[in-house]
Amino acid sequence: MGYTKDDELAINTIRLLAVDATFKANSGHPGAPMGMAPVAHVMFNKFMNFNPKNPDWLNRDRFVLSNGHGCMLQYALLHLFGYKLSMDDLKAFRQIDSITPGHPETQDTPGIEVTTGPLGQGFSNAVGLAIAQAHTAAEFNKPGFELVNNHTYCFFGDGCAMEGIASEAASTAGHLQLGNLIMVYDDNHISIDGDTKVAFTEDVMMRFEAYGWHTQWVKDGDHDLEGIEKALQIAKDVKDKPSVIKLTTTIGFGSLLQGTGGVHGNALKADDCKQVKKKFGFDPEESFVVPQKVYDMYHAHAAEGAAKEQEWNKMFEEYGSKHKAEHADLLRRLSGKLPEGWEQKLPTYKPGDKEQASRKLSEAVLEAIHEAVPDLIGGSADLTGSNNTRWKNAVDFQPPVLGIGDWRGRYIRYGVREHAMAGIMNGIAAYGTLIPFGGTFLNFVSYASGSVRLSSLSHCRVIYVATHDSIGLGEDGPTHQPIETLAHFRALPNMMVWRPADGNECSAAYYVALTSKSTPSILALTRQNLPQLENSTLENGIKGGYVSVENEKADITLVSTGSEVCICIEAVKYLKDNHNLTARVVSIPCFEVFDAQSKEYRLKCLPDGIPSLSVEAMSTMGWERYSNEQFGLNRFGASGAYKDVYKKFEFTPEGISKRAVSTVDFYKGTKVRSPVNRAFQQLI
Amino acid sequence: MGYTKDDELAINTIRLLAVDATFKANSGHPGAPMGMAPVAHVMFNKFMNFNPKNPDWLNRDRFVLSNGHGCMLQYALLHLFGYKLSMDDLKAFRQIDSITPGHPETQDTPGIEVTTGPLGQGFSNAVGLAIAQAHTAAEFNKPGFELVNNHTYCFFGDGCAMEGIASEAASTAGHLQLGNLIMVYDDNHISIDGDTKVAFTEDVMMRFEAYGWHTQWVKDGDHDLEGIEKALQIAKDVKDKPSVIKLTTTIGFGSLLQGTGGVHGNALKADDCKQVKKKFGFDPEESFVVPQKVYDMYHAHAAEGAAKEQEWNKMFEEYGSKHKAEHADLLRRLSGKLPEGWEQKLPTYKPGDKEQASRKLSEAVLEAIHEAVPDLIGGSADLTGSNNTRWKNAVDFQPPVLGIGDWRGRYIRYGVREHAMAGIMNGIAAYGTLIPFGGTFLNFVSYASGSVRLSSLSHCRVIYVATHDSIGLGEDGPTHQPIETLAHFRALPNMMVWRPADGNECSAAYYVALTSKSTPSILALTRQNLPQLENSTLENGIKGGYVSVENEKADITLVSTGSEVCICIEAVKYLKDNHNLTARVVSIPCFEVFDAQSKEYRLKCLPDGIPSLSVEAMSTMGWERYSNEQFGLNRFGASGAYKDVYKKFEFTPEGISKRAVSTVDFYKGTKVRSPVNRAFQQLI
Repeated sequence: MGYTKDDELAINTIRLLAVDATFKANSGHPGAPMGMAPVAHVMFNKFMNFNPKNPDWLNRDRFVLSNGHGCMLQYALLHLFGYKLSMDDLKAFRQIDSITPGHPETQDTPGIEVTTGPLGQGFSNAVGLAIAQAHTAAEFNKPGFELVNNHTYCFFGDGCAMEGIASEAASTAGHLQLGNLIMVYDDNHISIDGDTKVAFTEDVMMRFEAYGWHTQWVKDGDHDLEGIEKALQIAKDVKDKPSVIKLTTTIGFGSLLQGTGGVHGNALKADDCKQVKKKFGFDPEESFVVPQKVYDMYHAHAAEGAAKEQEWNKMFEEYGSKHKAEHADLLRRLSGKLPEGWEQKLPTYKPGDKEQASRKLSEAVLEAIHEAVPDLIGGSADLTGSNNTRWKNAVDFQPPVLGIGDWRGRYIRYGVREHAMAGIMNGIAAYGTLIPFGGTFLNFVSYASGSVRLSSLSHCRVIYVATHDSIGLGEDGPTHQPIETLAHFRALPNMMVWRPADGNECSAAYYVALTSKSTPSILALTRQNLPQLENSTLENGIKGGYVSVENEKADITLVSTGSEVCICIEAVKYLKDNHNLTARVVSIPCFEVFDAQSKEYRLKCLPDGIPSLSVEAMSTMGWERYSNEQFGLNRFGASGAYKDVYKKFEFTPEGISKRAVSTVDFYKGTKVRSPVNRAFQQLI
Repeated sequence: MGYTKDDELAINTIRLLAVDATFKANSGHPGAPMGMAPVAHVMFNKFMNFNPKNPDWLNRDRFVLSNGHGCMLQYALLHLFGYKLSMDDLKAFRQIDSITPGHPETQDTPGIEVTTGPLGQGFSNAVGLAIAQAHTAAEFNKPGFELVNNHTYCFFGDGCAMEGIASEAASTAGHLQLGNLIMVYDDNHISIDGDTKVAFTEDVMMRFEAYGWHTQWVKDGDHDLEGIEKALQIAKDVKDKPSVIKLTTTIGFGSLLQGTGGVHGNALKADDCKQVKKKFGFDPEESFVVPQKVYDMYHAHAAEGAAKEQEWNKMFEEYGSKHKAEHADLLRRLSGKLPEGWEQKLPTYKPGDKEQASRKLSEAVLEAIHEAVPDLIGGSADLTGSNNTRWKNAVDFQPPVLGIGDWRGRYIRYGVREHAMAGIMNGIAAYGTLIPFGGTFLNFVSYASGSVRLSSLSHCRVIYVATHDSIGLGEDGPTHQPIETLAHFRALPNMMVWRPADGNECSAAYYVALTSKSTPSILALTRQNLPQLENSTLENGIKGGYVSVENEKADITLVSTGSEVCICIEAVKYLKDNHNLTARVVSIPCFEVFDAQSKEYRLKCLPDGIPSLSVEAMSTMGWERYSNEQFGLNRFGASGAYKDVYKKFEFTPEGISKRAVSTVDFYKGTKVRSPVNRAFQQLI
């Protein structure tokens, strides 16, 4: 309360930084920053705790700009508060190799919590951050030590409000009664197609009420700083519901085009820049101006934040003396390392051990390691019994008042909300104390593509437990049988797609997934049983590929993954018995990891001189990189008992052998080059 | 009204067919059919018009089972009404090559309007069907000739209600005031994880009210047939809003496990089957029983439908005499053919014509053909000005009362709802009178993956106008720059992914997209300008690949698409000038279409004996099929001016040449095999 001209000056400074940066870049979105500068000013200065000198302080309040195209707002704030983001960085907005890219990216810019821009993602990340806070608080806070009590603040616009992922996440947050989550909806009536009346006329606040949120409306978001502050305070005081404040603002406030689509995604024209500066009392000829008063005000709040962190550090030290184990555990978690010796818990198998579906093998891993790795927090998009994602004694993560779990619970009921599950997992991972995993059918990981991509881009350690990974799921049929899915995610940079052939490969997949701090994983797992194979060991598995069956003077190499490896092994016998051909088998459970091995090793697996045939019951796309010829399924599957489906499409020892014979014949007398031998290195 | 024991008998017959079929298959979902049999009985018999002998009758009421796992309900109904679905077909439920697969598939089964199962899809398809009805009515109905006045009915469950795509579609339908759309929400409190209270506690009806729907609640969906009928009648009478009826039912009604998750996705145990039959007054030892009374009742309603169609046919004939042009146009549309000579309107270009972004070239196509092809109905997910999807004089498809368009409008404002846009387009295509296209950035087609997959699986002629197709979009940066996207959709069966290099290729892409009646297309289009190329002709383009620059005794073939083709052409000169190497260039705008050409033709493009290098500024995955070596981007992009980004990643004549030289050196002295030469044919 008690806002003065200085506040107005600060707000206008932010607006003009957005005007200047987008003008200089001749690209970007000035409208949202100009409209949201007032609420940002109030929220950051009056409510949020953070220390720009240590953006990693655990108990900082989190801020997510879900309407990430408005990132000049965020960059301006980071600069004003004294994060490592200079005026030159602002001037390099949207220029190559700057730390101020067109949308906020967490890996590039200090103070950016999550990568946003693709609409709706930040919204779901914020829900994940709030979940992680609630869980971490329940796990580590002790009487007298409220170590973790931060809030998560999020801005979103009409675009996010329209996206399905945000609806899913909002429904989840309402169910979970996340009182630590405060969102501001920028109700500016404008999206790229112009007035939202052309497509978006629902009652957004009524919808959020239906989800179980606390809702408020501040009608003059352009000027009513008191109203904004009051609403934020009320939201903060609501402890048993997430809060949303509808804030009616004027997009591009101050511009000649204010309130129109013209100011949404285009820089202001030169004369408009001048008039708005004049209107705000700035020199129209100058650019990138920050009055010292504004720096002083913002630096003062930054100093308060630094002081709060200092106090916190003291408390944490004391906590360490009283709660040694928890202190050590929290420090370890923040370092990204796993507890010493955890990997000893990973199940191992020997040939002849019981046949099991790899979804069951995955369950066995979770059962075995969940105590050793307390960072793990799992769930499923309403397929718990099918994904086998829940260890026996798991407690649900639920608001205690529901009587079906508590905040310490490590199992999240995501509901049938794949996209939000993935976005929430990215948010949980970003919090810093947890490693999330979440289950759905492999085919429906595609529903979450938007978030899966951001797991990769923003280096989140998240694990997708993707069961029912092929036509082997049988009766559910083509609507559920993945064909293109592995190709899709294998083509995604910084994503490990694992398709284990048996128990040891499954344990290896978890080992690499959990120890890779900045790479997400998809584990493609079967519904049907698989035998435990010779030569499958943890050590081999973690190389991403290895020789499963070696044979000297082989006529052909069969290269395969997952449930088709054991059929290839049967085909070796069939080929010898029926065609007097000698085959060897290579299992490549993870392309990304195999590619990282030395060329020498890869050539040992896939040597020159022997033609190779890949076998995988889905799209052959991408297999040309590891084989000369490909046997797969470049069509949709079929509904039926899984053995019938495999037979129909000839994924049998006979079917494989037929193609192996063709391959051997085709390459007879030629010098076969290993696909590992390439003319040049790829850019990475 | 006036329901008797016979109605109960019919309802229980449906329930038991679901029990028997899932028991025989030992797989499937008996719960939803047993719970929803009452509403289905009332709705189909008292409200819906259809002729089982002609499932294609234009003015039939449409039914969508969005909770497609409950398909035994639908199969039972189709059988009882006399569609071509025999008792043997019911007995073959979920067996290989049956017409009763695990989820309903439109291409396999007469009477199935759309393929459902992936949750939320049917919901959005229903919105599309309703849009198509409203538009077709506005276009073709005349005074005295209400040719098209059908309703779209849809069932959905908790799973669909949780999915973001359904939220998006519901918001859209509410905005559009689709009074012809009636949905029934199966409020059975059970999903796969058990009681919905673990994850889904929102007020669903309040949410639909917020979207602008008319809502009702029938509290005893198991028994209250009068209440169901009344609610459906009220819903039908509401003309200015879509309607949803919350129907509280008992999942697996009659089973010992009724009301629990145990009956959702598993067949009943043998003794449970017996007890439920006994409870319903059936012989517990018999299976697949339909009392003649029930057949009679259902056949009587089918006969009414057939009579209605006959009346309609008479009306349509009369319509033909009074409105000849419209009559002919409608018949043509229903045949799937395009108007004669439409292709003459396609723009063509010659080398030297103005450089243009392919998104602008796409706009030019739409501008040129929209009058000739009145079936086209387009839109964008709130990126109209960026996707260039709107011809100049387009009218918006809007409820007339809003004053910003009308039902005859052919431009749909989808809002920021990519997934629903795609699902709605599938529904529009399924209606039979329209060809939908919709725009978003290529990167955000991924948000719609779930529906895009169903476009392919269910053979929908829909066109995705996917602009901003690469790092060439520049400043928006890695969050918006596709890397994996083309590999993903190229791996999807029955999908044409086009990436035109210039104007003629763009016209060719539209030509093939529009004339392929059962294959969807994605057109990947640039933001940046492209020159018009030599040898690019409609005729070449429609082959999906052709020689762009021929050179005798070439040292290397450069294979490329879209915006990289012109850089490859520059590289030809660079290679000659700097390395004295002779290169040729092949453009492959569409893999799927190129693959369909004769081997002879493909070998002419990609001959043996010359090493080849692919060039595309995204994932190299899949390019091994068309080239010996690959130059691409297996990492995320960068935010900056597009030329800077291209330079950073070396997509320049120099960068290409460097790799071409490596390729030539690498293959020197070896017998290079064309990638077109394969050992065996793939299954298709």
